[in-house]
Amino acid sequence: MPQPKLAKESVTVMTEMVLPNDTNTLNNLMGGRLLHFMDIAAAIAAQKHSNRVVVTASVDNVSFSEPIRLGNIVTMKAQVTRAFSSSMEVFIEVWAEDIPAGVRVSTNSAFYTFVAVDQSGRPIEVPAVIPETDEEKERYASALRRRQLRLVLAGRMKPQDAQELREFLKV
Amino acid sequence: MPQPKLAKESVTVMTEMVLPNDTNTLNNLMGGRLLHFMDIAAAIAAQKHSNRVVVTASVDNVSFSEPIRLGNIVTMKAQVTRAFSSSMEVFIEVWAEDIPAGVRVSTNSAFYTFVAVDQSGRPIEVPAVIPETDEEKERYASALRRRQLRLVLAGRMKPQDAQELREFLKV
Amino acid sequence: MPQPKLAKESVTVMTEMVLPNDTNTLNNLMGGRLLHFMDIAAAIAAQKHSNRVVVTASVDNVSFSEPIRLGNIVTMKAQVTRAFSSSMEVFIEVWAEDIPAGVRVSTNSAFYTFVAVDQSGRPIEVPAVIPETDEEKERYASALRRRQLRLVLAGRMKPQDAQELREFLKV
Amino acid sequence: MPQPKLAKESVTVMTEMVLPNDTNTLNNLMGGRLLHFMDIAAAIAAQKHSNRVVVTASVDNVSFSEPIRLGNIVTMKAQVTRAFSSSMEVFIEVWAEDIPAGVRVSTNSAFYTFVAVDQSGRPIEVPAVIPETDEEKERYASALRRRQLRLVLAGRMKPQDAQELREFLKV
Amino acid sequence: MPQPKLAKESVTVMTEMVLPNDTNTLNNLMGGRLLHFMDIAAAIAAQKHSNRVVVTASVDNVSFSEPIRLGNIVTMKAQVTRAFSSSMEVFIEVWAEDIPAGVRVSTNSAFYTFVAVDQSGRPIEVPAVIPETDEEKERYASALRRRQLRLVLAGRMKPQDAQELREFLKV
Amino acid sequence: MPQPKLAKESVTVMTEMVLPNDTNTLNNLMGGRLLHFMDIAAAIAAQKHSNRVVVTASVDNVSFSEPIRLGNIVTMKAQVTRAFSSSMEVFIEVWAEDIPAGVRVSTNSAFYTFVAVDQSGRPIEVPAVIPETDEEKERYASALRRRQLRLVLAGRMKPQDAQELREFLKV
Repeated sequence: MPQPKLAKESVTVMTEMVLPNDTNTLNNLMGGRLLHFMDIAAAIAAQKHSNRVVVTASVDNVSFSEPIRLGNIVTMKAQVTRAFSSSMEVFIEVWAEDIPAGVRVSTNSAFYTFVAVDQSGRPIEVPAVIPETDEEKERYASALRRRQLRLVLAGRMKPQDAQELREFLKV
Repeated sequence: MPQPKLAKESVTVMTEMVLPNDTNTLNNLMGGRLLHFMDIAAAIAAQKHSNRVVVTASVDNVSFSEPIRLGNIVTMKAQVTRAFSSSMEVFIEVWAEDIPAGVRVSTNSAFYTFVAVDQSGRPIEVPAVIPETDEEKERYASALRRRQLRLVLAGRMKPQDAQELREFLKV
Repeated sequence: MPQPKLAKESVTVMTEMVLPNDTNTLNNLMGGRLLHFMDIAAAIAAQKHSNRVVVTASVDNVSFSEPIRLGNIVTMKAQVTRAFSSSMEVFIEVWAEDIPAGVRVSTNSAFYTFVAVDQSGRPIEVPAVIPETDEEKERYASALRRRQLRLVLAGRMKPQDAQELREFLKV
Repeated sequence: MPQPKLAKESVTVMTEMVLPNDTNTLNNLMGGRLLHFMDIAAAIAAQKHSNRVVVTASVDNVSFSEPIRLGNIVTMKAQVTRAFSSSMEVFIEVWAEDIPAGVRVSTNSAFYTFVAVDQSGRPIEVPAVIPETDEEKERYASALRRRQLRLVLAGRMKPQDAQELREFLKV
Repeated sequence: MPQPKLAKESVTVMTEMVLPNDTNTLNNLMGGRLLHFMDIAAAIAAQKHSNRVVVTASVDNVSFSEPIRLGNIVTMKAQVTRAFSSSMEVFIEVWAEDIPAGVRVSTNSAFYTFVAVDQSGRPIEVPAVIPETDEEKERYASALRRRQLRLVLAGRMKPQDAQELREFLKV
Repeated sequence: MPQPKLAKESVTVMTEMVLPNDTNTLNNLMGGRLLHFMDIAAAIAAQKHSNRVVVTASVDNVSFSEPIRLGNIVTMKAQVTRAFSSSMEVFIEVWAEDIPAGVRVSTNSAFYTFVAVDQSGRPIEVPAVIPETDEEKERYASALRRRQLRLVLAGRMKPQDAQELREFLKV
């Protein structure tokens, strides 16, 4: 089994400028384009943790509350939260800046999950994650609950077996 | 309030050929690119239902189980399931085909939510949805539960108030 | 020789949203970009009929009468009309919609021809087409005339031998 | 009415390198992508002749006989052949080169037609064309016949009135 | 005149994954595509320093010594070194990583110059730069020499007046 | 050693239309995108001279003085000036045209250097260049000085050894 690695070793910062083809007729970044950017940033973080080729396994619920405008700078910060055998959960936060206007807003966050694979595409074990900061520890702990929710939603776990999830929902 | 519309009036079929720039080093479609395709297909369905400009509000958990290969044909079918004031939930199913090999697989499904807006970007009321088939009725009914899950995950509803969700989780 | 197939088995519906980079300085879809979209939709129909890799052999005269605007939804419907040994003629119709304005117009139609090839690029026989509806039968019959026109224009048939074409031109 | 211009004043040479996203799974340039390149080259020639914004009105039959490979250099030469009030016919020739292999082949030629428009998109008169070389004169003369074929195919001229076309077809 | 700002306030980190369309037939990132990435990263740093819209004024000599491969991760770090009235020099460093192979190499560095402009495109004054670290101070000092070289190369300064440059060349 | 070739045999003309995604929020072509276009045009010229696959080795100082607008036509003319063993210096000039306005301006010029490589990426000797016109001879002669500047800037030649460069700087 590979040597555990610190959560911070996977931190990835990615910056994109919103170009015309990324926008809808209101000149706002399209949600799907942002999901595409986020997937790339998160995949790089998962590659860094595992030193493997990785494939997207799932994305959890993402909400889009703030419009991001043409010409804005989108900054994404991705970091692996926890590993489960061959899969890794990645937390990713997004900010948008209108730099000339001096405005920077937090627009999104999401959890993507990746699987590390070998050259023939078969899953392969990845290092465990060592969380250090309080935030990293909190996300490490809650990863279990999010994993149960994914399994329940995918019909691969019975709701009554999702202990962590049930506690969170105050059942 | 606008006239209710049949669920089937919003059906949208979109087809894409997987090109080299859509793929990773294993020659498989990247997850984020598929999320981008799905967002466009779902947005068109929401446009058809509302006859409005629409913006993505959220995407629910999406799982990627089947690799989609370079040169494959991706077919998406999107349809509005239910409307809530200015927002619409869209169900979208994805198939991938290797036509020369005669192989067609169901690869994904997801729920996207859109908000209809006027020209200054303010939310505006949309028609109610009238489900007709059994499938449409089932998705119409369960939309309430998914909506509660989105609100709980976004911290805008307390788990104990999410009645439909709690029932589903057999609490 | 492969088993004949019904014309309707190749029907392909493709939908595209007109993005900024597809447009000229009048904010209208450029003709060449539409020809590109149509080629992909038609190629998928030819793939479905032949279950082969296909390459574009020709496109017949295409007229552009209606401007298609930025943000419009372009819908294409492609269907194989007739097969000649290793080549297939595909009929493709195009509509453009300004959905918020509730306007949908028929903008184009065209005939593309494809050749089915094996992995080394050599032509390979394809199934015959069985037309069923009146429209399919009319297009099946007139395919002969269009084929003669292509051969005459390419200098590969003498005008006096193009019997079907001469009849159509009331010679 | 604007001053006539020489045919050669509109000559436009355009060069493109075939990139991965332009190719199919056989690593050959897709026909629709070439039609897109050709449309841009031809539009620039029509702009040069008319000093106006131009929109594509039609493309005549185009045949694709030679595969063009990934990494090949595509050279296009476009030139206005004749003007009819607000429309211009453009002749365009295409060559593909595999420069390291020292191979250059003529792959295509086509006639595109453009309409010059003012800023509100209304057709506007363009200069007449003065052909000088034998080739320019031949294309100028035959432009009439091609125009009749376009009108007959579009159902806007009766075959019996297409005098030039009928003569060409040896009726 | 605007308030001086620290050099570090403009630091910008940008990450890109090398996709097929960015590569030549050897599967290496094309030099021009990298110059394009670097321009965007450097422009964002200049925007951060000036809080203005910026336009590229020049790029100094850039050498490409290491091939960057398809699928590699390119990381760029850009930072403003010094301001001259309305122009800013930006230093940018590039690394390429083959993460699965655990290889990371420094591939390039360059100096881009940007001009801050107002909404009508006229140059506008920017804050002075305060260097703090030894590296920042060295780049701040040597910016004068590079500026003289740019002016001499552009024919806008006589070589004999380029005092700093002459000293560097040990004249 | 390969047979010398005339400078004019490598002349390459490339034309691009400025599309929305090539522009910044002022609707002007971004500098990095132009550097990308220029790299492709120059690489084709170097391919023509060497009949080899080529990779970018460096670009010399490039200044951007004239804004190029959305919808403008960019014309580039590239030509090899001199060869040094396996490397070639290419001179490239750029013009931008607003054709409807009848305005054409010279916007840029630059020197790119390429290395010819074999299929495993190893440098390989190229033909010498025979300059014919006065301009070609001047650029052939001054190529030595520019080469010394590149070597000095890259730290691979001592300033005191750069004889041609020192003379140019009137030391």
